[in-house]
Amino acid sequence: MTSAPKANAVVGQSGGPTGVINASLVGVIEEARKQPEIEGLYGAVHGVAGMVKDNFIDLKHLTQETLEIVAASPSSALGTTRDKPDSKYCEKIFETFEKRNIRYFFYIGGNDSANTAHIINDMADKADFELRAFHIPKTVDNDLLVTDHCPGYGTAAKFVASALVGDELDNRALPGVKIDVVMGRHAGFLTASSVLGRQRDDDGPHLVYVPERGISIDDFLADVDAVYKKLRRCVVVVSEGICDKDGVTWAEKLMAKREKDAHGNITLSGTGIIADFLASQVKSNLKIKRVRADTFGYLQRSFPGLQSEVDVREARWCGRHAVQYAMAEDNGSVAIKRVANGSDYKVELFRTELSNVAEKTKSMPTEFINSSGNGITEKFVEYALPLTGGLPKTAYLANGSRI
Amino acid sequence: MTSAPKANAVVGQSGGPTGVINASLVGVIEEARKQPEIEGLYGAVHGVAGMVKDNFIDLKHLTQETLEIVAASPSSALGTTRDKPDSKYCEKIFETFEKRNIRYFFYIGGNDSANTAHIINDMADKADFELRAFHIPKTVDNDLLVTDHCPGYGTAAKFVASALVGDELDNRALPGVKIDVVMGRHAGFLTASSVLGRQRDDDGPHLVYVPERGISIDDFLADVDAVYKKLRRCVVVVSEGICDKDGVTWAEKLMAKREKDAHGNITLSGTGIIADFLASQVKSNLKIKRVRADTFGYLQRSFPGLQSEVDVREARWCGRHAVQYAMAEDNGSVAIKRVANGSDYKVELFRTELSNVAEKTKSMPTEFINSSGNGITEKFVEYALPLTGGLPKTAYLANGSRI
Repeated sequence: MTSAPKANAVVGQSGGPTGVINASLVGVIEEARKQPEIEGLYGAVHGVAGMVKDNFIDLKHLTQETLEIVAASPSSALGTTRDKPDSKYCEKIFETFEKRNIRYFFYIGGNDSANTAHIINDMADKADFELRAFHIPKTVDNDLLVTDHCPGYGTAAKFVASALVGDELDNRALPGVKIDVVMGRHAGFLTASSVLGRQRDDDGPHLVYVPERGISIDDFLADVDAVYKKLRRCVVVVSEGICDKDGVTWAEKLMAKREKDAHGNITLSGTGIIADFLASQVKSNLKIKRVRADTFGYLQRSFPGLQSEVDVREARWCGRHAVQYAMAEDNGSVAIKRVANGSDYKVELFRTELSNVAEKTKSMPTEFINSSGNGITEKFVEYALPLTGGLPKTAYLANGSRI
Repeated sequence: MTSAPKANAVVGQSGGPTGVINASLVGVIEEARKQPEIEGLYGAVHGVAGMVKDNFIDLKHLTQETLEIVAASPSSALGTTRDKPDSKYCEKIFETFEKRNIRYFFYIGGNDSANTAHIINDMADKADFELRAFHIPKTVDNDLLVTDHCPGYGTAAKFVASALVGDELDNRALPGVKIDVVMGRHAGFLTASSVLGRQRDDDGPHLVYVPERGISIDDFLADVDAVYKKLRRCVVVVSEGICDKDGVTWAEKLMAKREKDAHGNITLSGTGIIADFLASQVKSNLKIKRVRADTFGYLQRSFPGLQSEVDVREARWCGRHAVQYAMAEDNGSVAIKRVANGSDYKVELFRTELSNVAEKTKSMPTEFINSSGNGITEKFVEYALPLTGGLPKTAYLANGSRI
């Protein structure tokens, strides 16, 4: 490895925003300022799209006060993109890099972003252009490989867990069946976080369904019926990516059905399609009067003022480390290793190969899902609770002894 | 007026829970403990339903620690009810009161609850049974008469305003049209609160529709089109009670249409029907690719750990005052008067007649809605911002000057 070149650096954000992706950005900025090898620090506006269009802002001259507000802000402060560069797209990026003498490339995102960094790094190698490409992980889905968990997850999980703390109490106060649909097309980590705030023995969510396990509508109804018969109420949390026994998602099946049923008058976009469907199934099959359903939607990744302390600290740390690694290494992805858990929770960061993270995803380990496929285990709670931090403690009085 | 009788008191919660209805309950409890005239303090489990079934818990012997957790908890700690007592129902309540020597009745709820207190008080008068019936206001809709604003509103408004702070940033980062559906069937106060966190000149929400003004789908689309053409993005907030020019709600029209279109295969409950419909209209008519919609649902009233300081303080204060009024008066409803606004914001409480509040609701004043009927005025912000308190400050960098 040659010594770190004196050159400019670029940082970009990619994919869906999270509650702490800006903390990683601030980590990159504050560490880059310390490195004499990094001359200019460019923020790519809307990720790779800004790199192609030569659309950059200066990140070297922001005040510390601004940086702190950025680090606390949800969403992607540089703008983001869903573009997945092919080799032609990458060539254009590469042209910009050459023109601007950009030799450090930091990309904050998920597995697609790791892949982008990987492709661009390979192209630079082939062209004998010294470029150091680093990926900084973020995703509310928590589905990246190698790393113990992903920055962005803890904060989204805190939102979902908090939401269920309140929803559980609401359902106690006005009993019925409540169904909540949580983000997560393939991995159930965020949905599973709904259990983290449970305090009383009979607290909901009483049933949790993740995409890793297929469930038939009949089994779903039998589960709800059993809980309802016992408690006279039931709180259910379902991943948006929930699928049938055959592995096809319910959303796909429902959209196909809607197309068939609709006669051109209303085209439906399907925002709340799973929530609607499940509520109507419970209502009509189980003859339960009070059935409500919510889809938590974008609030899960964008709600401000609710960062997990651990998550925001680690996200910033990942940003800093990416810059430090770039001083010594050609490329890589930052990963988190948990070295102690529980009240001693502690992590260390390390570098892994881009190819270990690019394009791959992971699912929930089997040990996090109960044997019936309708609940979450204590093992998961041990894993996830340190990432959200403490959740609101509440009281419900009507369970008290009668006078 | 005779002097306050030495007897037992009952307190109940009614209607939809809020983020601070438990603070009002705690206000009642702590003040009732101070009054020697009040012997036992009963919590009615599930409101009037518990009074009919003689289902009470003891509220005199809770620890201060428990009370503080209750005051900070969303939802209704005694359980709540949607029952609207008729005279037969009231007779049963009255029997319980006689049996239990309950001569103080505190009911925390909306206009229906004020009416319940009113009916029961009238019946007691006719039976020559000394009963003091007091209503303590709560509603996220903020639609009660007489009072300047309602406990519960500030906290729900803080949730909605915060949500939009994040959603606005999310929409900047990934531009498109975003539509959010907010609670409020008849009054637009909660929907209007979506503007309270705006910081930059071009911050969303860019369009806000409240139930007080009918809007045709064509006008709606023209509004979105104009904003989108100017900003290449648009954040829209809509009350669930939004109605067409003819005064019929869009929800009703859509449900009727769905019934007609569906051929027995899928019965839809309509949770996200307005969000789905609007998103699909924008997508198909304006040919905008990225259109998303969320329905905020029950989170607006149940999300924990997000109480407005002003709101929770006033809610508790209302509970205390109800008990104080009951020592001197036969009946009444607690109301809030704003005696100073802005940074000097200050309120006083006063007693009003139950009949002034019972069964009535108010709408947003005309001066709170812009002349086009698609936005909210500065007058509203002056009114509502003291009720939510400060909202998260954020930063977005991609607007910065290009390098």
